[in-house]
Amino acid sequence: MSTTPQHLQYVLRLADSALILGQRNAEWTGHGPVLEEDIALSNMSLDLIGQARLLYQHAAELEKTLTGNTRTEDDYAYFRAEREFANYTLVELPHYGPLAGTAHADNDYAVTIVRNFLFASLMAHLWTALTASSDAQLAAIAAKSIKETRYHLHHSREWLIRFGDGTDESHRRAQDALDYLLPYTREFFSADDVETVIADAGLGPKTADLEAAWSEDVREALDEATLTLPEPAKHVTTGKHGEHSEHMGYVLAEMQSIARQHPGATW
Amino acid sequence: MSTTPQHLQYVLRLADSALILGQRNAEWTGHGPVLEEDIALSNMSLDLIGQARLLYQHAAELEKTLTGNTRTEDDYAYFRAEREFANYTLVELPHYGPLAGTAHADNDYAVTIVRNFLFASLMAHLWTALTASSDAQLAAIAAKSIKETRYHLHHSREWLIRFGDGTDESHRRAQDALDYLLPYTREFFSADDVETVIADAGLGPKTADLEAAWSEDVREALDEATLTLPEPAKHVTTGKHGEHSEHMGYVLAEMQSIARQHPGATW
Repeated sequence: MSTTPQHLQYVLRLADSALILGQRNAEWTGHGPVLEEDIALSNMSLDLIGQARLLYQHAAELEKTLTGNTRTEDDYAYFRAEREFANYTLVELPHYGPLAGTAHADNDYAVTIVRNFLFASLMAHLWTALTASSDAQLAAIAAKSIKETRYHLHHSREWLIRFGDGTDESHRRAQDALDYLLPYTREFFSADDVETVIADAGLGPKTADLEAAWSEDVREALDEATLTLPEPAKHVTTGKHGEHSEHMGYVLAEMQSIARQHPGATW
Repeated sequence: MSTTPQHLQYVLRLADSALILGQRNAEWTGHGPVLEEDIALSNMSLDLIGQARLLYQHAAELEKTLTGNTRTEDDYAYFRAEREFANYTLVELPHYGPLAGTAHADNDYAVTIVRNFLFASLMAHLWTALTASSDAQLAAIAAKSIKETRYHLHHSREWLIRFGDGTDESHRRAQDALDYLLPYTREFFSADDVETVIADAGLGPKTADLEAAWSEDVREALDEATLTLPEPAKHVTTGKHGEHSEHMGYVLAEMQSIARQHPGATW
């Protein structure tokens, strides 16, 4: 397969966002508010980590073609440094959102749900576009992932509406989470060299081309949830370029520590 | 449906062992040594928690018939005290096993695997017997659970052999885990009033009747793994009677804290 550094980087971006969000959501496993939700969220984490695995396996093939290096999915997940992860900043944020940095930081399910909704709304469009990728392997991963993503979107949208159109407290918390998280979605749509090369090669869409449909979906759901769309932010986060928030190091430490204690373990 | 306190108690025992082991194994989610194992173990946790949910839902019906009390699966999971949990002591132990209580306590995947193997070996026989239960609902849960359990057994048996018949270190760790955990399996086979009533009503087997087949399965796997069966223990643990190890309180605190912070939350 012919490939480019941008192609590899694009696949890693997709993988990293899936992995890091899966890892974040897995923090709820065994700590859910009700058993049913605990299981639902854990299942969605496994979907995301499963998507990441497929994408890392594909990235390994691309990297082999490109540089001759042999890397495995575990190398990508456990043995890269923070700067090498290219996930959106949105997915690495802790679940306590607006209270970040205060003594009252406590995981808030509203943050979890709003983030899942914003991300799944993007991925529903992005995976759909990627089913037509000129990279057949990526198209196949997209075809599998779109089904999972539709469920994630359905789940988070239902809860978004239940929160927003619920009690005063649940409404306030959902709105706070939205105000906190929405600015991070700017990064979805910022173009760069990677996306240009990808789009030119027919490997994937320009994410900016998905923005109108994404915005429409978000607006509709927020209306139903009686939530208010915050003013668009000016600052654009840079996780996909490897420049992460102060939270990223903790996610990686948590995720990578066991594998790094036993590098090359053959068991 | 006609029922007895022992019938209810029996269903809760099954549910509690599934829930607590599911909770324990979920501690590996996001901390696995390799992505594939992380996902496999998380999936098995979800199987166990799913079994627990079905059993708690059934227990709720039995309790309603018996006492008129209305309880939900979440009441059982999140709002009972330690003394009310009737899981085997085996499943509540931390993953650091033989090092428990020392400064060197570190989660050890060998403990996880050996425990899963010992428990799944029992449940493979127990669920099979329960598919013939005079309680049709319990029989249906057994029919669903046996398929999951066969996979859990297959998975843990493969790893047991890989560990035992692996490197010197993996062999030593597997043997240490086995020496530590095997005594806790005595509890599987200790008869009591609950089991007598259950067996007389055709609701389930006497677990003691499953011991020979279980022992044979364990012995075969240990032979393949080049591991040594420890001497049988004399002490019988008492988790199923609500008398737990010092570790149980921590499992419950971890599992119940979120739900208890928001009792009756309607979101």
